Amino acid sequence: MASRTTTMAPEAPQAPLIRSSVEAAHALIQPHIHRTPVLTNTTLTTLASTPQTGDALKGTQWEGQEPAKPKAKLFFKCENFQRIGAFKVRGAFHAVMRLIEQEGIEEVRRKGVVTHSSGNHAQALALAARSFSIPAHIVMPTISTPSKIAGTQAQNATVHFSGSTSQEREAVVADVIQKTGATLVPPYDHLNIILGQGTMALEIQTEVAKLLAEGESLDAVIAPCGGGGMLSGIAVALHGTGIKVFGAEPSFQGGDDARRGVEAGERITSVKTLTIADGLRTPLGDHTWKIVSDKAYVSGLYAVTEKNIKDAMKLVLERMKCFVEPSAVVGLATILYNEDFRNMMEREAGEKGWNIGVVFSGGNTTIEAITKIFAEVPEEKAERHEGVVGADGKRVAENVAG
Amino acid sequence: MASRTTTMAPEAPQAPLIRSSVEAAHALIQPHIHRTPVLTNTTLTTLASTPQTGDALKGTQWEGQEPAKPKAKLFFKCENFQRIGAFKVRGAFHAVMRLIEQEGIEEVRRKGVVTHSSGNHAQALALAARSFSIPAHIVMPTISTPSKIAGTQAQNATVHFSGSTSQEREAVVADVIQKTGATLVPPYDHLNIILGQGTMALEIQTEVAKLLAEGESLDAVIAPCGGGGMLSGIAVALHGTGIKVFGAEPSFQGGDDARRGVEAGERITSVKTLTIADGLRTPLGDHTWKIVSDKAYVSGLYAVTEKNIKDAMKLVLERMKCFVEPSAVVGLATILYNEDFRNMMEREAGEKGWNIGVVFSGGNTTIEAITKIFAEVPEEKAERHEGVVGADGKRVAENVAG
Repeated sequence: MASRTTTMAPEAPQAPLIRSSVEAAHALIQPHIHRTPVLTNTTLTTLASTPQTGDALKGTQWEGQEPAKPKAKLFFKCENFQRIGAFKVRGAFHAVMRLIEQEGIEEVRRKGVVTHSSGNHAQALALAARSFSIPAHIVMPTISTPSKIAGTQAQNATVHFSGSTSQEREAVVADVIQKTGATLVPPYDHLNIILGQGTMALEIQTEVAKLLAEGESLDAVIAPCGGGGMLSGIAVALHGTGIKVFGAEPSFQGGDDARRGVEAGERITSVKTLTIADGLRTPLGDHTWKIVSDKAYVSGLYAVTEKNIKDAMKLVLERMKCFVEPSAVVGLATILYNEDFRNMMEREAGEKGWNIGVVFSGGNTTIEAITKIFAEVPEEKAERHEGVVGADGKRVAENVAG
Repeated sequence: MASRTTTMAPEAPQAPLIRSSVEAAHALIQPHIHRTPVLTNTTLTTLASTPQTGDALKGTQWEGQEPAKPKAKLFFKCENFQRIGAFKVRGAFHAVMRLIEQEGIEEVRRKGVVTHSSGNHAQALALAARSFSIPAHIVMPTISTPSKIAGTQAQNATVHFSGSTSQEREAVVADVIQKTGATLVPPYDHLNIILGQGTMALEIQTEVAKLLAEGESLDAVIAPCGGGGMLSGIAVALHGTGIKVFGAEPSFQGGDDARRGVEAGERITSVKTLTIADGLRTPLGDHTWKIVSDKAYVSGLYAVTEKNIKDAMKLVLERMKCFVEPSAVVGLATILYNEDFRNMMEREAGEKGWNIGVVFSGGNTTIEAITKIFAEVPEEKAERHEGVVGADGKRVAENVAG
């Protein structure tokens, strides 16, 4: 192949990764995004503040330990109600609008934008580009589900097919760039994407403050971590506020690459997991690693099992009546089922307990996909963690919304 | 059996079925219920205002007809986010609180309340009773699903088992009343229940007004019709406001008993349908028939197929990201798929179109139940109505939230 230069969305002049840059991003993209609601739910908050049973811990690394007794009040940031059904529009609009500022709308329209993604970022970029009449090129694996291909095409984007490996995808991206001059807008490892995703943290802060009594404050936020764009953005936005930021990952087949990398002090650059949290199958990038691995930004990373994710998803659908994708609930699953997190919370939050923001990142799944997920034989014991709190304070099965 | 007098929640002194009675009910129950949100959704509003394809009408009674071209903006009243996951708490709290006013709390606590229901009303009454430390007796068929039994027991109610016929249920209710003196709070055919359910109409009016531009107004409300308590309450609340009220039912196995009864001029008192809209399997009662069959209150009744219900449910879950039960979406299904309704709307609403309130009555279903519903072979052609609107204005498959 001929040598090619990849045209990334320019990073200079680039706003620094500080809170005021997130505020500027928010002001810029606000007309184009939904201000998604922050919801509470009595059932889930009660469950979070109720110790797991010894039986629930059987077969886990916490078997035989005294269950933690944390206190937490949960505030759910529902980005499943966001445009295109996921937070990704925040970063996509921000990157596209900064590109327009830097190059001028005519130039951006002439060249277009390109990305490789079969997921939410593809639709987000297609929507952002369409909003400004900019051509969007989306490189998708040939094996992508037809509904995703149709969805992206319905946003007027041009879909280019590639093989499934990252080399094959990048070759097609390079080809598109050579032919069109399109600017690459990557899904997470880009400063303007990070700043865009961070805007949700500002909304969480404002909305939770409205719901709290005088003298109370938001203590922590937990968000899913895949490529780390959202987690980094939230951490940048909340840095210096005293609000702790945590990341949550699936443990299945090493999907907790960020946690393992931070523990080992070295970024893990390749992940091969088929976790049901399919938005979180990617490793961290250069930029996101720097933030996520910095304890001054992200206080801790925690992992949950496939069973934990399914149990949390079932609770959110059936009890909270919110339609979410599996990736969206790893934060809640951590709060409910990860004893390391729960012990830490008990220790740090004490009697007063924590007010904790929980990010539901998106809701782009289907009844068909959910049917498949719940039909699979769980890799652990059945129905262990599920249930809510009965009159006796124990976790029991129930069918009552909060 | 010895002769028994059934003690119904007393209806005298009883507020008349007029809007001010609904307002009084609202003031009374407001501290105990959630003010559920009114949501909009671009995808569904666009779909409502897009003609069905000729292909979609194949095999229906409208085959070969010119598809209607109505204009509608939809406002969804999300009672799936209500306490216990359904609107039923409105009526239950109202009936219980009026009973307390009339008999005194000590007397009501001494006697308790009783109902026969395996559904949302059972949990609603159990919750309302528990809130005032009143014993609740719930008569449920022995064959009820264990989760519903456990859910009702978790509300501290005493569950009494009966056979499945109405005679068997009523015998057990009479037995409970004889032994305890409990007051019967029936699920829908009771004036205080009707007034309680009607309170949601006041909230719809207020919330939609906030969302509309100056000079615009709410034109109509459509709600599911089972026993007719909610539909009657809404019709009473909106009577005289100029806002039209419509009812929606499942057509499967004669589930559209209210529509057929009104057409024939005589109430149908027995329904045997296994429609997936399981909250709507009941016939109208004495009180609800009077209101529902009065054109001055309910402008029209429309029916939808099981396929229509499934298609609408899929759209609400996957596109709107709201978890709803099948009964909840018959109103939306009517707007999207019933050509009689759509032609009427085109005719009456004209170029300006209608702002129409659409009641999502509840969200009490499970992933397991949804899996079963969508695994069944549809009684009509597959995937016909599903999809949203593409750039060309045609209905196409897409995966994009509003």
